Amino acid sequence: MTKLIPKNHPRAHSLHVRERLVNAFDDGLVAKEGLMAHGRGEAFDYLIGEKTSKSAKSAIKAAAFALVSAKYPVISVNGNIAGLCPREIIELSKQNILKVLHKNGAKDILGVDRKNSTRISGLDSARRIVDKNGIYVADVVLVPLEDGDRTIALKKAGKKVITFDLNPLSRTAQTADITIVDNVVRGMRELIDTCVKMQKKNLRNVPFDNKKNLARSISEIRTHLSRRAKSA
Amino acid sequence: MTKLIPKNHPRAHSLHVRERLVNAFDDGLVAKEGLMAHGRGEAFDYLIGEKTSKSAKSAIKAAAFALVSAKYPVISVNGNIAGLCPREIIELSKQNILKVLHKNGAKDILGVDRKNSTRISGLDSARRIVDKNGIYVADVVLVPLEDGDRTIALKKAGKKVITFDLNPLSRTAQTADITIVDNVVRGMRELIDTCVKMQKKNLRNVPFDNKKNLARSISEIRTHLSRRAKSA
Repeated sequence: MTKLIPKNHPRAHSLHVRERLVNAFDDGLVAKEGLMAHGRGEAFDYLIGEKTSKSAKSAIKAAAFALVSAKYPVISVNGNIAGLCPREIIELSKQNILKVLHKNGAKDILGVDRKNSTRISGLDSARRIVDKNGIYVADVVLVPLEDGDRTIALKKAGKKVITFDLNPLSRTAQTADITIVDNVVRGMRELIDTCVKMQKKNLRNVPFDNKKNLARSISEIRTHLSRRAKSA
Repeated sequence: MTKLIPKNHPRAHSLHVRERLVNAFDDGLVAKEGLMAHGRGEAFDYLIGEKTSKSAKSAIKAAAFALVSAKYPVISVNGNIAGLCPREIIELSKQNILKVLHKNGAKDILGVDRKNSTRISGLDSARRIVDKNGIYVADVVLVPLEDGDRTIALKKAGKKVITFDLNPLSRTAQTADITIVDNVVRGMRELIDTCVKMQKKNLRNVPFDNKKNLARSISEIRTHLSRRAKSA
């Protein structure tokens, strides 16, 4: 699909990202439900003003520290993530920050070899199947754009869970240890940069309270809404 | 597609409507972009609390009055609408409220016969083609789930435009004469009932200010957000 998006269209950038996802759908990478999930993300991104908020930056710092200082950090890549930011995922793995990847063209791909598959409890679908060299042994798991059930199961399995979720009220957002309320295309870039900086400067952790930070995200949306309402 | 949605799933109703849209996609009625648009709608519906708000009820009353008292009311049905609430659309037309329909299995279908097609100005795509017995002659047009460009073109063509749009800040919402900020599956039912009541009781119009009503919608979202944040 190569549609011409007018440069002066008020939502040109968002339309380009959308096109990327439609291409990923055409390539069989993204499901129909994934297209709808992307639409939900677009709406929430619109409501946070389509920029990385202060609360998202705090969460990114906490996430970078958790990833850099983890023993066995793992990133779980689903179709939407692979369609939206494949380069960033590979770059993140090349920084030696994340040793393991799922379902994408990076060097260490786990979760695709059946003889290594095992299960985590509390899930009744294909999503409970994880690689025993991957999520199963991980201490810190980055699961961007994940669903609530799986996030809860990962928490129960004792993992430290980091997620990207544009809806600060979702079960995933509320369950994870660190929730980055940001567009993953934007936020992943910031996460990589922050990880690189931390490795160089040996930055220390700062206290992070996910619930408080999520409340801040909600308050940012409310502020943005009233600002937009005034200019409408 | 017949997926089993667990009855106790926190979002069962929304998942059923989603399934209806996926079926419409499989039938070729809904585009990929339509799936994403539905996702955006889901997010906004979530934010208004998935119920018909007071502001939506005010807009529905104003819309019913405009439709009942119009000389030549027309409803424009796109794939998403046909997929989401085909019965409601047909029922609305049977009430003799809306004389004309587009692209759906109702008695008067316009917009599909080429020899009757004409154009409205200000649009550069297939969407500018309208039926000369339909939108072209209409005084009141109900365009649920419409895009901004087309809404502006219809306004410029002198139509009174009624729309359903869950995003009170969208160009469509801000441009239309009457914007019903509600889930179309829910709101269309309420609109039908209100039209029927008005025809029976000969209800009078009440003053309606769309901009003020949209500001009320935004304020309802803000209130709902802070309520949800407290219970999270």
